[in-house]
Amino acid sequence: MFYHVKELQYQAKPDRPDPLFAKQLQEVLGGQFGEISVALQYLFQGWSVRGNGKYKDLLMDTGAEELAHIEMLATMIARLLEGAPVGDLEVAAKDPIIGAILGGMNPQHAIVSGLGAMPADSVGNRWTADYIIASGNLLADFRANLNAESQGRLQVVRLYESTTDRGVKDMLSWLIARDTMHQNQWIAAIKELEAKENVVVPSTFPRELEKQEVSYTLFNLSRGNKSASGRWANGPSMDGLGTFNYVENPVPLGQKPALSPAPSYIHDTLPSVLKSDVMPPPNMC
Amino acid sequence: MFYHVKELQYQAKPDRPDPLFAKQLQEVLGGQFGEISVALQYLFQGWSVRGNGKYKDLLMDTGAEELAHIEMLATMIARLLEGAPVGDLEVAAKDPIIGAILGGMNPQHAIVSGLGAMPADSVGNRWTADYIIASGNLLADFRANLNAESQGRLQVVRLYESTTDRGVKDMLSWLIARDTMHQNQWIAAIKELEAKENVVVPSTFPRELEKQEVSYTLFNLSRGNKSASGRWANGPSMDGLGTFNYVENPVPLGQKPALSPAPSYIHDTLPSVLKSDVMPPPNMC
Amino acid sequence: MFYHVKELQYQAKPDRPDPLFAKQLQEVLGGQFGEISVALQYLFQGWSVRGNGKYKDLLMDTGAEELAHIEMLATMIARLLEGAPVGDLEVAAKDPIIGAILGGMNPQHAIVSGLGAMPADSVGNRWTADYIIASGNLLADFRANLNAESQGRLQVVRLYESTTDRGVKDMLSWLIARDTMHQNQWIAAIKELEAKENVVVPSTFPRELEKQEVSYTLFNLSRGNKSASGRWANGPSMDGLGTFNYVENPVPLGQKPALSPAPSYIHDTLPSVLKSDVMPPPNMC
Amino acid sequence: MFYHVKELQYQAKPDRPDPLFAKQLQEVLGGQFGEISVALQYLFQGWSVRGNGKYKDLLMDTGAEELAHIEMLATMIARLLEGAPVGDLEVAAKDPIIGAILGGMNPQHAIVSGLGAMPADSVGNRWTADYIIASGNLLADFRANLNAESQGRLQVVRLYESTTDRGVKDMLSWLIARDTMHQNQWIAAIKELEAKENVVVPSTFPRELEKQEVSYTLFNLSRGNKSASGRWANGPSMDGLGTFNYVENPVPLGQKPALSPAPSYIHDTLPSVLKSDVMPPPNMC
Amino acid sequence: MFYHVKELQYQAKPDRPDPLFAKQLQEVLGGQFGEISVALQYLFQGWSVRGNGKYKDLLMDTGAEELAHIEMLATMIARLLEGAPVGDLEVAAKDPIIGAILGGMNPQHAIVSGLGAMPADSVGNRWTADYIIASGNLLADFRANLNAESQGRLQVVRLYESTTDRGVKDMLSWLIARDTMHQNQWIAAIKELEAKENVVVPSTFPRELEKQEVSYTLFNLSRGNKSASGRWANGPSMDGLGTFNYVENPVPLGQKPALSPAPSYIHDTLPSVLKSDVMPPPNMC
Amino acid sequence: MFYHVKELQYQAKPDRPDPLFAKQLQEVLGGQFGEISVALQYLFQGWSVRGNGKYKDLLMDTGAEELAHIEMLATMIARLLEGAPVGDLEVAAKDPIIGAILGGMNPQHAIVSGLGAMPADSVGNRWTADYIIASGNLLADFRANLNAESQGRLQVVRLYESTTDRGVKDMLSWLIARDTMHQNQWIAAIKELEAKENVVVPSTFPRELEKQEVSYTLFNLSRGNKSASGRWANGPSMDGLGTFNYVENPVPLGQKPALSPAPSYIHDTLPSVLKSDVMPPPNMC
Repeated sequence: MFYHVKELQYQAKPDRPDPLFAKQLQEVLGGQFGEISVALQYLFQGWSVRGNGKYKDLLMDTGAEELAHIEMLATMIARLLEGAPVGDLEVAAKDPIIGAILGGMNPQHAIVSGLGAMPADSVGNRWTADYIIASGNLLADFRANLNAESQGRLQVVRLYESTTDRGVKDMLSWLIARDTMHQNQWIAAIKELEAKENVVVPSTFPRELEKQEVSYTLFNLSRGNKSASGRWANGPSMDGLGTFNYVENPVPLGQKPALSPAPSYIHDTLPSVLKSDVMPPPNMC
Repeated sequence: MFYHVKELQYQAKPDRPDPLFAKQLQEVLGGQFGEISVALQYLFQGWSVRGNGKYKDLLMDTGAEELAHIEMLATMIARLLEGAPVGDLEVAAKDPIIGAILGGMNPQHAIVSGLGAMPADSVGNRWTADYIIASGNLLADFRANLNAESQGRLQVVRLYESTTDRGVKDMLSWLIARDTMHQNQWIAAIKELEAKENVVVPSTFPRELEKQEVSYTLFNLSRGNKSASGRWANGPSMDGLGTFNYVENPVPLGQKPALSPAPSYIHDTLPSVLKSDVMPPPNMC
Repeated sequence: MFYHVKELQYQAKPDRPDPLFAKQLQEVLGGQFGEISVALQYLFQGWSVRGNGKYKDLLMDTGAEELAHIEMLATMIARLLEGAPVGDLEVAAKDPIIGAILGGMNPQHAIVSGLGAMPADSVGNRWTADYIIASGNLLADFRANLNAESQGRLQVVRLYESTTDRGVKDMLSWLIARDTMHQNQWIAAIKELEAKENVVVPSTFPRELEKQEVSYTLFNLSRGNKSASGRWANGPSMDGLGTFNYVENPVPLGQKPALSPAPSYIHDTLPSVLKSDVMPPPNMC
Repeated sequence: MFYHVKELQYQAKPDRPDPLFAKQLQEVLGGQFGEISVALQYLFQGWSVRGNGKYKDLLMDTGAEELAHIEMLATMIARLLEGAPVGDLEVAAKDPIIGAILGGMNPQHAIVSGLGAMPADSVGNRWTADYIIASGNLLADFRANLNAESQGRLQVVRLYESTTDRGVKDMLSWLIARDTMHQNQWIAAIKELEAKENVVVPSTFPRELEKQEVSYTLFNLSRGNKSASGRWANGPSMDGLGTFNYVENPVPLGQKPALSPAPSYIHDTLPSVLKSDVMPPPNMC
Repeated sequence: MFYHVKELQYQAKPDRPDPLFAKQLQEVLGGQFGEISVALQYLFQGWSVRGNGKYKDLLMDTGAEELAHIEMLATMIARLLEGAPVGDLEVAAKDPIIGAILGGMNPQHAIVSGLGAMPADSVGNRWTADYIIASGNLLADFRANLNAESQGRLQVVRLYESTTDRGVKDMLSWLIARDTMHQNQWIAAIKELEAKENVVVPSTFPRELEKQEVSYTLFNLSRGNKSASGRWANGPSMDGLGTFNYVENPVPLGQKPALSPAPSYIHDTLPSVLKSDVMPPPNMC
Repeated sequence: MFYHVKELQYQAKPDRPDPLFAKQLQEVLGGQFGEISVALQYLFQGWSVRGNGKYKDLLMDTGAEELAHIEMLATMIARLLEGAPVGDLEVAAKDPIIGAILGGMNPQHAIVSGLGAMPADSVGNRWTADYIIASGNLLADFRANLNAESQGRLQVVRLYESTTDRGVKDMLSWLIARDTMHQNQWIAAIKELEAKENVVVPSTFPRELEKQEVSYTLFNLSRGNKSASGRWANGPSMDGLGTFNYVENPVPLGQKPALSPAPSYIHDTLPSVLKSDVMPPPNMC
């Protein structure tokens, strides 16, 4: 169950409106690695944990915080949109700044949301749950989380570089710091689980049931062998259970597939037509 | 540039058709962590690497291999669909197996693809590039890759548990082994980059520009403090640059946001209407 | 900013697992009118309100509650999935219940989420922000909210009819009651705004700028005139500003459109080709 | 069955081309509340009505009209796109208007549709049936329709404010008037159904089966109690069957959920791993 | 502008309800090649034709007819859903037919649409305008249309094979006949345009601007040379302007790409990190 | 199985960066008819062919080539993005070119992909498998392929017209030539199959089972009879099995549909409510 307070976790006040930056900032609100994604990802993972210990608590702590970040960004975007112009080209052409805004801002910020933030990314794609991950296996999912925080911090940093507004930069520098923590915390949790389970997910599948002859092999399938000099092609494997090896010239291990004909009620191309390899005369039509 | 040979990388031959399992197997072909996802993810990452060394080579090697895995799964699914029944309920009811197949198989395998595999997951959602990740920052992206191989191996293992078909199990045990390798290889690459760059992505953002006072803080936002006992709340941070700390009762650091009214041409609810807090009499309507 | 407590707003415990019902129940968690939709819809509306009075408070109150409902449903679904079988058809055919479950359950509940709830609907479509609405105009948005609670309660009622599990019915009867309240509250808020603004959204557009000659006209565009007997075709209009009228035989008021040719650099079909109305001889090919 | 005449319902002729406005106008053709949405929403509702009276007739009348509106907008957009420039930046930079057009127009209007309208919104998202609603319950659906016409008229009004083209304004003022009618007509139909059924959808669910103790309660879940002063927290409920009440400090009514472990064949994190709350030493890695 | 009559273009009455077939039949209503797709595809093409002759008329004729087909299918599906059961597994298990229906029907037909047809395909994916095509070039678009009618007729035929219901078969045999006509008509229109413009789209691009040395070459990029025996590798090209030729061992014509480093404000992996090809010692961690 | 070489099939080097054109060029990489679409379409068709002859070989040859085209475009786009500016409006306003770039480029090229190509189209919609087609019937699918190459070549030609960069034009002229070949090859393959099977897909459905009385009829459903003068309304049908005819005034052949009421557990609007056609008094509320 959730309680809301109206104060923001951290301030979200730009020096001045900037509808173009509002559009860009949508990326970290409603994009693939925006705050909606991490909030719902952590909450869904937490709700699915089949146990009630510290991992679940950590997920719920962090999920609740990400909800606060959605709120901060929604507030910031609404403020960046204040006074966004509408108008047509003749007017716009007289003032290059107005022209650039009208050409470059997200038109839905005026037409659809009425100067509010949207659950969408920087090009206007609406947020989709295709972005989130919750598998029931925490080592797998914490890796998803570490990735999300890595991509997310990278995007916030790129946005930080794109503005000179001190108010915006102030809020972004706070979000960047939180992403520093979140990367650190998922690394800590991952290392703990790896220490308990070893590094390959899932750790519970019996090793003898996999084809171990190819469990540590790098196939050189892109001509040129620079990849041969990587750690992944030499020495003990990272799980400590094998030795990396490199196959310079990999060959197929299977046959050419030959599929049986489809039943007639499917109305695929008939085998008789498929088998006919006689070339029609060049003047056929 | 790519060359194709018609032999499969590894055999893909079930003991017998099984349209229900064909539907399930679609998950690891065309789902969020299916082979289409990893193939295109690695290739797009490789094409974006701004340099030509071993990391790019590794990405192209693995991307090319994943194309072969799409092919194996497409072949296996086409064979599992051979002889899939069509028909209506009266017929079906006479034979519970036929009934279960007709009720449970993906109808598009008959109607749309004509007993071929589809670029879709196990419930029929078509594959989307929303699933893939390529940021230009390799440490971030290798974490995405490690996650993808973790989720992917987990899903293949779950499918392995769901069938008794020896031919299917044989192919899956081969894919599981390859996922073992791929998890190992991305871990190796990640460790190498972390050794060069430290663990927080991006490593190139000046630390003094982030709000370092919250860079290592866990806020207890889900009541109950089990998370306080985790590694993430105690001791040196994983990046070695700070010390984890725990805030038992976090409070807001920002103000209640008060947004300015919208311009009249936006036609949002008027401030005069919004401000009116007088309650209408209960018999208003 | 949000705080979470681990207790549920209301209990969510089925009498027994039922993976088929788990699949159906996903509709009101992650479907078009599921709890994710109303939670995010109310929160985004609240964050966009340009004012800080009772309407914003009401939106945030209700948005926070809907987060709790997501949690209840996620918990219920995870429990309904406990012990979900996996297996293949030969086994399934021996037990019709197992067979029906294997054929009918959402395979992603086993393969993808590991027996956890998913942010998806009852056929497996992932939740999308295309479902939600926040325009900055509260009368418009409260109508969206009333619709959402109407559709949502209707769906929960249909699910209530579909199960005999007393634990499930208990939780659903609680959600149905909350939807009763939410319909009542949005009606109350709508009536208040309509009393202030009149009923047509937006109320701020000058009436003289619209083509008032068709502002209260019903065009009979589907042959048969039963619609002529409705309130909407007779008497004063609902906004009190006009009189409904009915046009039995509507005719076009515009011309046939004739578009100018495209510039040559667009490579549309050439005007010369389009204009050529000479029919080729029937034996042309 | 449908018949088409080539004349437009109302004229759709701009004074001059304006590719930027063409892009914006797409919102009310192919956006969430554009004409495709209302046309298909009303038609699908009409086709599902299980009865043949005035409501079905009204739905078919209005659905047929919305098809005509799609046509008007498609024609207008094609004309706004006439002569849209193509070219590159060096050329564009010499003329700020050309530059703004090239930067701001929808590139698919040139590349994909060849200067024709697209079934997409103002940022280029293709129309999706996720936007539409047809439940078989007319009171619910008429509320959806009233919302759609409210959002739609609001968007058309915002577009009207964004242009000085008299031809465009002429057509928009006609569409605005039609939306005035459509809001009025759905209100009329809603009031009629509410008079017959009372206001809570569905009206056919027995009241004694819902948890009536929370059917009229507002839970104050966002700190601050401005919402307590609303009509929704005081006096008789809008359905006349209860009395609104306000809970200042709501508490959870359920327990902390404790989920049972997953079966081993699911390969979620093992209970033994989850239960282990011993913190590893800080120098673990 | 459109007029509707309530009679169906052709009857749509099944012998008896069949909720499983209702689900399958959705494919040709709301799937990629369903009636919504062809209706909107032809109408959008018609609205974009920059001319007013017979091609536009043909498009509008056929588009209007496809609207009637949507209506027939929506009616048929609503009737197939009549009396669809709801219930839970214990009940279902007693009657294998009920069990198969409950497991196999689309749950949204009960929960969401209230026994009405949906704008979705046979697995429940909602219709999307991603399916449709209108380019402004009629030869290109008529090829899209011929493809749509070919895929569509194939799917209807497969559905015809899947039922023994005479009422359903009667309607499907009518739709199959219409698809026969529509394939014939688009072939006729294509041949006419090809006679005017030659066969390569667009016909208006100057031949000397393309790299004519590869305009008629088949590159053998999948090892094995069966494709060498096809018409496409021998004799005059179909446009009559060249001669097909076959390259048995194609080689790259470009260089290895070497991308320049990204600017520092993008925070991609640093060139210094990328260039470092020194392998870390195997005991690095 | 696939092998990759790092050399490009053809060079992909622009004269200079152009982030606006990079955005536009995305259309033919990741749009509906971009290279991802044709690559995966041909490969999936090839994997589903139930036979191993020249058609399968041709599909695999061409699919493998299209993978190379993805690579060329990804490389070109990465180079066009080199040095893309970031920044805010104050800076931008000083230089109209910078302003146009900042307003017009795809912001995800900076924020998300770090100056790499994306699997998305020119407005930022991510690629989706909804675009591709593989039915198991080769005549149907080759028509899909001919359409794809027609739309694709048209789009590349339009892009060619939009740039003056000689390096870009060089690569595009190569792609245009390949599309010339691919249109020619699919036409060749189609003609061969048509010669074997006749022109209506599927050719295997018995003619006597379709309603032959409407198999060659054009219904004039858009008032005006220009379409009567087309080849499609006169003379022998294209399949040689009938004669085209034209119905000037088509009438419905079916009845008004009357659907039975829904069962009470569905909670649709009650028949008693639906049947009530008594109009409430105009002063009802």
